[in-house]
Amino acid sequence: MPEKHHDTQIRVRYAETDRMGVVYYGNFYTWFEIGRVEFFRNAGFSYRDAEELDECFIVVVESGCRYRSPARFDDELLIRTRLRSIKGPVIRFNYEITRVDNGAAVAEGETIHLVCDSKMKVKKLPDKYLRILEGLLPDESK
Amino acid sequence: MPEKHHDTQIRVRYAETDRMGVVYYGNFYTWFEIGRVEFFRNAGFSYRDAEELDECFIVVVESGCRYRSPARFDDELLIRTRLRSIKGPVIRFNYEITRVDNGAAVAEGETIHLVCDSKMKVKKLPDKYLRILEGLLPDESK
Amino acid sequence: MPEKHHDTQIRVRYAETDRMGVVYYGNFYTWFEIGRVEFFRNAGFSYRDAEELDECFIVVVESGCRYRSPARFDDELLIRTRLRSIKGPVIRFNYEITRVDNGAAVAEGETIHLVCDSKMKVKKLPDKYLRILEGLLPDESK
Amino acid sequence: MPEKHHDTQIRVRYAETDRMGVVYYGNFYTWFEIGRVEFFRNAGFSYRDAEELDECFIVVVESGCRYRSPARFDDELLIRTRLRSIKGPVIRFNYEITRVDNGAAVAEGETIHLVCDSKMKVKKLPDKYLRILEGLLPDESK
Repeated sequence: MPEKHHDTQIRVRYAETDRMGVVYYGNFYTWFEIGRVEFFRNAGFSYRDAEELDECFIVVVESGCRYRSPARFDDELLIRTRLRSIKGPVIRFNYEITRVDNGAAVAEGETIHLVCDSKMKVKKLPDKYLRILEGLLPDESK
Repeated sequence: MPEKHHDTQIRVRYAETDRMGVVYYGNFYTWFEIGRVEFFRNAGFSYRDAEELDECFIVVVESGCRYRSPARFDDELLIRTRLRSIKGPVIRFNYEITRVDNGAAVAEGETIHLVCDSKMKVKKLPDKYLRILEGLLPDESK
Repeated sequence: MPEKHHDTQIRVRYAETDRMGVVYYGNFYTWFEIGRVEFFRNAGFSYRDAEELDECFIVVVESGCRYRSPARFDDELLIRTRLRSIKGPVIRFNYEITRVDNGAAVAEGETIHLVCDSKMKVKKLPDKYLRILEGLLPDESK
Repeated sequence: MPEKHHDTQIRVRYAETDRMGVVYYGNFYTWFEIGRVEFFRNAGFSYRDAEELDECFIVVVESGCRYRSPARFDDELLIRTRLRSIKGPVIRFNYEITRVDNGAAVAEGETIHLVCDSKMKVKKLPDKYLRILEGLLPDESK
């Protein structure tokens, strides 16, 4: 049985820090995006193909993040991504970011998405993606 | 009597858009930062001075945003910033972003902050800033 | 007679700094973009319209910057943009960034562009834009 | 004998694209930074340690990039970094970015740096770093 979550690793870029010496708070949302994209790839499809071949855009309608400890330049971090629910066109993800060296919590957050076509009109997730993603929902949500 | 909120205007940069043709969701948090910095300036002090002269860092511990309608390149947007509460070292702000041309809602969000010294140790907001900011709290919070 | 250059003012964002306490070197190129967009607006047209109504994309093929002195959070900077030449589909701009308070040099740079259609095929700048921009070329280039 | 250049791989982030559907031109400089940092790590030291333990800041004084073909979301790219010269406090690097799938050229560029202390005063590169880096200079420069 496949893992329900997916783990990706990144290294903090100099560009991502700010003058406080830590990562700028808005950049965590870019890491959540990386988590989502790799979650899809691990599930067996490419989000780029979903956009380009199936006109399926996963638009963000809500995002949030709690910061537990600072991330610094050159730190190696683990992004753990979980699919939380799919209800019609609404998809929810959550994320945990921890340090690779000692597992300490760095941040956690969530995003809520609407599936849209290229004209930003809401549509249902195509069946082929729905079938894949349903298998990755947490047990309690079934 | 001074307005309790502060309004700042920005124009969407090309760099802030993504391949969906709209502003990347993480960049709204940079606009919230602009709102905060201008809120402080309008209240009568510079956040840079707070950091450099009074070792007073307003660290973000939580952030969130709901996206109402897309922002596009070259759009003029209004950021309305409100101080929501100050409880010891914890400061809360919220933000509304609207289009300048028709007032349509673009996004709304909030940030929660901890006042820290340069070593990231929590401290109380210095009295001189507290006195200023208390005058800008919403009426219901007093 | 209109000024050949155009000046725009910006204020350095916290997000633009890095852990060295100064603006990250890649962010100067975003300021050059602001300079270009405002140069066009000042000349009498909107770059967004050029893209959306005339399928005229000004793609960057080369960029460069020399950094003279650091820019810091909350600094007010002036971006002076000059059109340097137009040769068929090739357009060149250069930029000078100075401090507003004392005029000190912060950076200077240039970008070279190719006019393209929406499929990234090179095309000539439409006549209506060419006529406007030719009037803004430096005297020595005519 | 060690390779004189160092290769690092990245995958294009959604956040790095703009509304033209390609990577924003300023973001290539962030990739050059990744190339440098990994070049140092491969040479046997951490740039973070150079800053934090040896007060050795490699400040950018000049940067440039030629764009050969667009980079798009989810593309896998190779950053090839070469040390070009060290003359007193001045260090030069250049970079080639190519597609992983077919080797096509995406961009090439260079950066020039000054070694500085934490107060941005120019200083010589510490001997322990100089010895390492000299071994990685191109043959023609010796």
